[in-house]
Amino acid sequence: MTITITAFERSPDGGKGLARDMRVRWALEEVGQPYAVRLVSFAALKQPAHLALHPFGQIPTYEDGDLGLFETGAIVLHIAERHAGLLPDDAEARARAITWMFAALNTVEPPILELATARIHEADKPWATQRMPLVIDRVRHRLASLSHRLDDADWLDGAFSAGDLMMISVLLRLRASGLLDDDPNLSAYVARGEARPAYRRAFEAHLAVNAARPAAG
Amino acid sequence: MTITITAFERSPDGGKGLARDMRVRWALEEVGQPYAVRLVSFAALKQPAHLALHPFGQIPTYEDGDLGLFETGAIVLHIAERHAGLLPDDAEARARAITWMFAALNTVEPPILELATARIHEADKPWATQRMPLVIDRVRHRLASLSHRLDDADWLDGAFSAGDLMMISVLLRLRASGLLDDDPNLSAYVARGEARPAYRRAFEAHLAVNAARPAAG
Repeated sequence: MTITITAFERSPDGGKGLARDMRVRWALEEVGQPYAVRLVSFAALKQPAHLALHPFGQIPTYEDGDLGLFETGAIVLHIAERHAGLLPDDAEARARAITWMFAALNTVEPPILELATARIHEADKPWATQRMPLVIDRVRHRLASLSHRLDDADWLDGAFSAGDLMMISVLLRLRASGLLDDDPNLSAYVARGEARPAYRRAFEAHLAVNAARPAAG
Repeated sequence: MTITITAFERSPDGGKGLARDMRVRWALEEVGQPYAVRLVSFAALKQPAHLALHPFGQIPTYEDGDLGLFETGAIVLHIAERHAGLLPDDAEARARAITWMFAALNTVEPPILELATARIHEADKPWATQRMPLVIDRVRHRLASLSHRLDDADWLDGAFSAGDLMMISVLLRLRASGLLDDDPNLSAYVARGEARPAYRRAFEAHLAVNAARPAAG
C-alpha cells in the first residue's frame, strides 16, 4: 500500500518550506516510509472531491488504503504511532512527547498564526502599524516560556521526537519576522531540527515541486 | 493511584464552564475515572512549582503517579487511550476520531481564540469596532465548513468520541458571541454534547468551585 499525501500545486510561500505538507514529509522521512504526493491547485482545494477528504479545504491529507486523514497533527501522530523513530518506547515518555505536539499546535502556533494574519491579511489596514506590537508581544511571551523550559537541552524531552518535529515546524514560521533571531537558544534548537538528514530530504523534495514556480498570490 | 488535575482557584469566566479544566473533567466523567482537583491561584500559575508541571503557566495539568502532563488535548488523548468510552476500537476509526481532536484545536480554535482576544484584550483599542467583522468572518468560515461536514449526523464520525468532546468544548467558547445561534445545525450539535450525563456531572463539579466566587478580573 502506498501512502499518498497532498501538497499545494503552488505553495503560497514559493517553496520556503512553510506549507504544512513539510511537516508530514519530514515525519515520513524520519521513519523511512516512502510516499507519493498529489499536488492540488487552489481551485481544487474547494471542490467536492478534495472536501470529502479534507472538510476545511486545506492540505496536507494522508491516504493509505481505505484510510483518509487530514490535519497535520493527526497525520504526524498516526505515522509516529505506526513506525519507530518519532516516539519513545516508554509509555510515560511517549505521553510527554505527544504533549509537546499539542503544545506546538494549540499553545505556540495560535499567536504565530495571528501574527501571520496580521502581516499578510491586515497589512493594508489602518490599524496595522499600531496593532503589530501587541501581536508580537503575544508571540514573544510564548517563546520566552518555551526557551526557559528548553534551557540548554538539545530537544524538549530527552531524544528527538514528534513533539520536536512539530514545535520546530511551528517556530520556522517565525523566521521571516526576525523574532527567532532574538532568542539564540530557540534559534539553535530550530537549526538542530533543520540539520537533521530527514528534514533536509523532506525540504529538497518540497523544494523540487516549488522551485521552478513563482510564488502564488 | 489518584489522578489529580489542576483548575483555576477563580475561573476568569466566573464558572461558565469555559476554562479548560472542563475538557479534562468531561473526559474523565465519560470514562468513569475519579479524580482530585488542586486549585491554583493566578499568582501560583507563574511560580516555579507550577511551571515545572506546566511550562506555559496555565491550567489544566494532569498527574498520575510519576507522570505529569499539561496541554488539554494531550491529557484528553491520554485518558481516551487508557480507558474505554472516548475512542472507537477499530484502528482506522480511532485515527479519524483523533483527527477531529486536532481539527478542533488547530483549525477551529485558533480563529475563536483570536475573537476572544479581540473582545477581551483589544476592546478598548481604536480599531476594535472596525476590525471585528474581519475576525468574525474568519470564525464563520470555519463554522461553515464544519457544519457542512457534520450535515445531519449526531456526531462528527460515527459514535460520540474524544473528537466531539474537543470540538464541542471549542465551540462552547462562541456561545456569548451569538455566532453559534446563526447555525442551527451546530447549535444542536453543541446542545447534544451538553446534554450528555458526563458533561453535566463535569459542569456541576466545575460550577461548585466557582459558583460562590465573583469572576476574577
